[in-house]
Amino acid sequence: MASQNSVTDMSPKITGELLRQLRQAMRNCKYFAEPIQAYIVPSGDAHQSEYIAPCDCRREFICGFNGSAGTAIVTEQHAAMWTDGRYFLQASQQMDNNWTLMKMGLKETPSQEDWLISILPENSRVGVDPWIIAADQWKNMSKALISAGHSLVAVQDNLIDAVWTDRPERPSTQLRTLGLEYTGISWQDKITALRTKMTERKITWFVATALDEIAWLFNLRGADIEYNPVFFAYTIIGMNTIRLFVDLKRLSEPALRDHLQLDSPSKPELSVQTFPYESVYTELQAVCAALGPKDKVWICDKASCALTRVIPKGHRTPIPYTPLCLAKAVKNATEIQGMKMAHIKDAVALCELFAWLEKEIPKGTVTEISAADKAEELRSQQKEFVGLSFPTISSVGPNGAIIHYRPLPETNRTLTMNEVYLIDSGAQYVDGTTDVTRTMHFGTPSAFEKECFTYVLKGHIAVSAAIFPNGTKGHLLDSFARAALWESGLDYLHGTGHGVGCFLNVHEGPCGISYKTFADEPLEAGMIVSDEPGYYEDGSFGIRIENVVLVVPAKPKYNYRNRGSLTFEPLTLVPIQVKMMNTELLTQKERDWVNEYHRKCREVVGAELERQGRKEALEWLMRETQPIV
Amino acid sequence: MASQNSVTDMSPKITGELLRQLRQAMRNCKYFAEPIQAYIVPSGDAHQSEYIAPCDCRREFICGFNGSAGTAIVTEQHAAMWTDGRYFLQASQQMDNNWTLMKMGLKETPSQEDWLISILPENSRVGVDPWIIAADQWKNMSKALISAGHSLVAVQDNLIDAVWTDRPERPSTQLRTLGLEYTGISWQDKITALRTKMTERKITWFVATALDEIAWLFNLRGADIEYNPVFFAYTIIGMNTIRLFVDLKRLSEPALRDHLQLDSPSKPELSVQTFPYESVYTELQAVCAALGPKDKVWICDKASCALTRVIPKGHRTPIPYTPLCLAKAVKNATEIQGMKMAHIKDAVALCELFAWLEKEIPKGTVTEISAADKAEELRSQQKEFVGLSFPTISSVGPNGAIIHYRPLPETNRTLTMNEVYLIDSGAQYVDGTTDVTRTMHFGTPSAFEKECFTYVLKGHIAVSAAIFPNGTKGHLLDSFARAALWESGLDYLHGTGHGVGCFLNVHEGPCGISYKTFADEPLEAGMIVSDEPGYYEDGSFGIRIENVVLVVPAKPKYNYRNRGSLTFEPLTLVPIQVKMMNTELLTQKERDWVNEYHRKCREVVGAELERQGRKEALEWLMRETQPIV
Repeated sequence: MASQNSVTDMSPKITGELLRQLRQAMRNCKYFAEPIQAYIVPSGDAHQSEYIAPCDCRREFICGFNGSAGTAIVTEQHAAMWTDGRYFLQASQQMDNNWTLMKMGLKETPSQEDWLISILPENSRVGVDPWIIAADQWKNMSKALISAGHSLVAVQDNLIDAVWTDRPERPSTQLRTLGLEYTGISWQDKITALRTKMTERKITWFVATALDEIAWLFNLRGADIEYNPVFFAYTIIGMNTIRLFVDLKRLSEPALRDHLQLDSPSKPELSVQTFPYESVYTELQAVCAALGPKDKVWICDKASCALTRVIPKGHRTPIPYTPLCLAKAVKNATEIQGMKMAHIKDAVALCELFAWLEKEIPKGTVTEISAADKAEELRSQQKEFVGLSFPTISSVGPNGAIIHYRPLPETNRTLTMNEVYLIDSGAQYVDGTTDVTRTMHFGTPSAFEKECFTYVLKGHIAVSAAIFPNGTKGHLLDSFARAALWESGLDYLHGTGHGVGCFLNVHEGPCGISYKTFADEPLEAGMIVSDEPGYYEDGSFGIRIENVVLVVPAKPKYNYRNRGSLTFEPLTLVPIQVKMMNTELLTQKERDWVNEYHRKCREVVGAELERQGRKEALEWLMRETQPIV
Repeated sequence: MASQNSVTDMSPKITGELLRQLRQAMRNCKYFAEPIQAYIVPSGDAHQSEYIAPCDCRREFICGFNGSAGTAIVTEQHAAMWTDGRYFLQASQQMDNNWTLMKMGLKETPSQEDWLISILPENSRVGVDPWIIAADQWKNMSKALISAGHSLVAVQDNLIDAVWTDRPERPSTQLRTLGLEYTGISWQDKITALRTKMTERKITWFVATALDEIAWLFNLRGADIEYNPVFFAYTIIGMNTIRLFVDLKRLSEPALRDHLQLDSPSKPELSVQTFPYESVYTELQAVCAALGPKDKVWICDKASCALTRVIPKGHRTPIPYTPLCLAKAVKNATEIQGMKMAHIKDAVALCELFAWLEKEIPKGTVTEISAADKAEELRSQQKEFVGLSFPTISSVGPNGAIIHYRPLPETNRTLTMNEVYLIDSGAQYVDGTTDVTRTMHFGTPSAFEKECFTYVLKGHIAVSAAIFPNGTKGHLLDSFARAALWESGLDYLHGTGHGVGCFLNVHEGPCGISYKTFADEPLEAGMIVSDEPGYYEDGSFGIRIENVVLVVPAKPKYNYRNRGSLTFEPLTLVPIQVKMMNTELLTQKERDWVNEYHRKCREVVGAELERQGRKEALEWLMRETQPIV
């Protein structure tokens, strides 16, 4: 349930002068032959990243709204911003009245295309930066505009940048090399495996634009985007060449040059040619100019329109998920071991946190913010801690019902014995990434709070304990998480789980557990996803129980058509608060699951707490993991 | 689990001479300016019907394979036929060695496009009858061929018909009018409701091509296609005009002319203009020639390429489901009442059948075919019986594991006390359509048979008793039907449910319960679907438990965001054999469900059996509905 830019400022940004300047740029022939009548400002960066660097927060810059999802469109007369239900309140507070908020999902809200068509003069030109619009989005938008007599125009110079005088620099943080003890596979072997897949599908070139795929491929990490250990780069892989596009200043360090074998490649086909980050466009043009008649180039259909369109249509093979995305999702034994270690360390920190909260809350001095800070402090004491994997959601009572809440000084509530506390947090360790949510009560929960918690727990267990055939897609498990809530007329309006990277992005494709997707890839042993059903009672409390779980083979009684079966093994090992459960609503099977889970927490995390000499946390763990009957 | 053309003949059709003639036609300039190098023969008719009339069985005619799904492609050198896993055996038996069987779903099997591209000489022309290929299929095929330098050509004269000398006539059966007592809404009110939807979406014309939609709209039924009470027709609805295209000879009967108000329409905009069936093309051309610049025409994206392409692209608004399809799916109170009555009559016939089987099987004289015949005979004694709704699947032991089995003299097995018997059958009554599967053992089932039956029953109950929010799509319930099987490593390789028409097609869109779909429409109160999980042990037995169920509002304890909840009410009221259950594997809730279901069977069907004086069946019903503990 991570989201990068949770609320930070709730007063509207004054945008009148900015809009005047932007509209001037829209009319300025320096940028194009003819003026444009509308300019689209999407959320993303040139890599279609979910989390973005400050220099890429263009939509926030122009309208003031800093939620994770939204698209602004400015015309001569209008300025409108589309976002979804999570952000209606926040967007209306952060934008001044130059802006119209377009509430997506409401029946009366027009789509961007329909709105443009309804207000534009005939034969209008709509501009967009082709680097920050994905190829598939461009296609849909362009089609709609053309059918109404308009056109979509690629504006190479970003018009927001033209008016953004104090725009931050693109980050260029130090790169970290990861050895085999963390990755399990050398980047050379990853390249070879990729080329095998290319050969199988008769593909001659592959263009990677997703930052986490590039980081994974080269066994490198950066810190260019907060919470995401990635770095700005592109790569173009041929059957005999490897082109890496990155700020060349970053490659001076000997260890790094050694890792990439920049000065003495083992084999010519594993020689990495490095180029400036910005030269990817011209280099890809050069590659494409030399394509043979049968040469095919793989590129993700979510890659930028700019790069996609460099590849001539007849040579372009767009794919919904790249082979790197798929390979990265299936963790190898080393990565799994690392993820397990990271989760044990993370559990140590959380056990300490909860033991501390239990002691401190009665004093009335702990707030949402100080609890989040304490969690970070405790995590940072663990070995190989790098940073948080997303901003901590630390929420009390009614704040817990705001799904993407992040505590701010003006919303900060004190933790008490009377309200439910929800904390959704995670960290990056060099050996793995964590993401865990626990919901606790430090006094006496109400019967309704317990009832809802128990339904959520039943859903969590239903997914975690599910056995399903090999080849099953995650979305087919989503309803298991909801059945108990549905039976009582309740539900939650988010997906149930997302893929989790290994010392990489806390959200990654191509698998997940959500009713919203259909084109997800089947779950495979070695994939790692979150299991996080919830329930949110507006104005009152929020409940979510989240573990990160590993897909593992299962051995049920029969084996229909030799397909084999899968199930999940929890990597997260943090007690689930028994006080919040109405155990009478649990079946015997569910009670057994809770007891077995808590036994494992004791065994594994208990041993580590012991080793680290964290006595109070150990006592807390032992108390919280008493079997239920 | 209905399928029209189950096996009827298992010896291969001799096709050498036919193929020679077809290839001659492909080179014959009578049909086109230049010869074509390949000819595609899809399965369907011009209405994209699932079941087709004998005159439309062109793919069967050319290759011999008569399964419900398959596409034949003939080139100068090759003849190949694609079908799916249900039909590999049957197709290989029915086709001679002029044909290559293309097993869809296997990794090594090329798609039709890839195969064509791999064997065609450069710049080839591939022909297809544009009336029997859907617009969306045309688009995909055409795109693939063009990208490889070939082209897809619409051949107006069907080349199969050119070589099919004894092709049957298109049926033109007597039309039946349905009064308000069956339909609940007059066709005039249906037209008015349709026009309201057209106005809402700014649509000026609507072209209906699906036969069941046209039958539903005009409250008429025919018998042109076996098992489907439909008739060959098209209709074009404007805001002030209604054009009906049908064999005009059918419209001479006074009652029919009266029903359609052909001689004295009440209002000009409700005046039905009738045209010959064949003139739809030229009439649609005339309509399109007179379109205003803003006029939009609705047509289903599954309609024929021929009709779709008459509508100029700028005026064409393709839709995945037509408003008639959606309106037809939500049954009104009169239709629901009719469906309930039909299911009671159907249950009477089945109770009689099972009582008779119990008595006759020990004599060793009952076969799959004679049991199916008996079922039809008993159904035909019920009021307003019209015919079967699909060919009865009556299968014993290993035959039960063949999902689309239909008994033939050479496969016909005798029902015994030693094997599981599966019967999937249904009928058309004037007031409704039925479809029910029961699996029974007339001796002592094995522990494994009972175990599997019980998992299937658990899945059936999980769907039937599910409570879910308004707006939920049926595919989200599919996994509920599988969870118990999955837990033991078992599964079934078909969907869980399909929409059911009211005295219409036994399969209808746009709702259903299947992991295979995603674009289904949300379930709504009044929709009717089947709930039919199964388990098939190859070479041994088949199990399926199928009820037709009605979507009804549910009233759980809470009502999150006022969305309201739904659940299912079984319309099928035929006992589920307790002897096949391992009741120890059932939860208390599941036992309660079985007992409540059987109580309702007793109450409702018992009363009707009593009324009809069918004593033996009543005794059987009372015995079979004893509560379980």
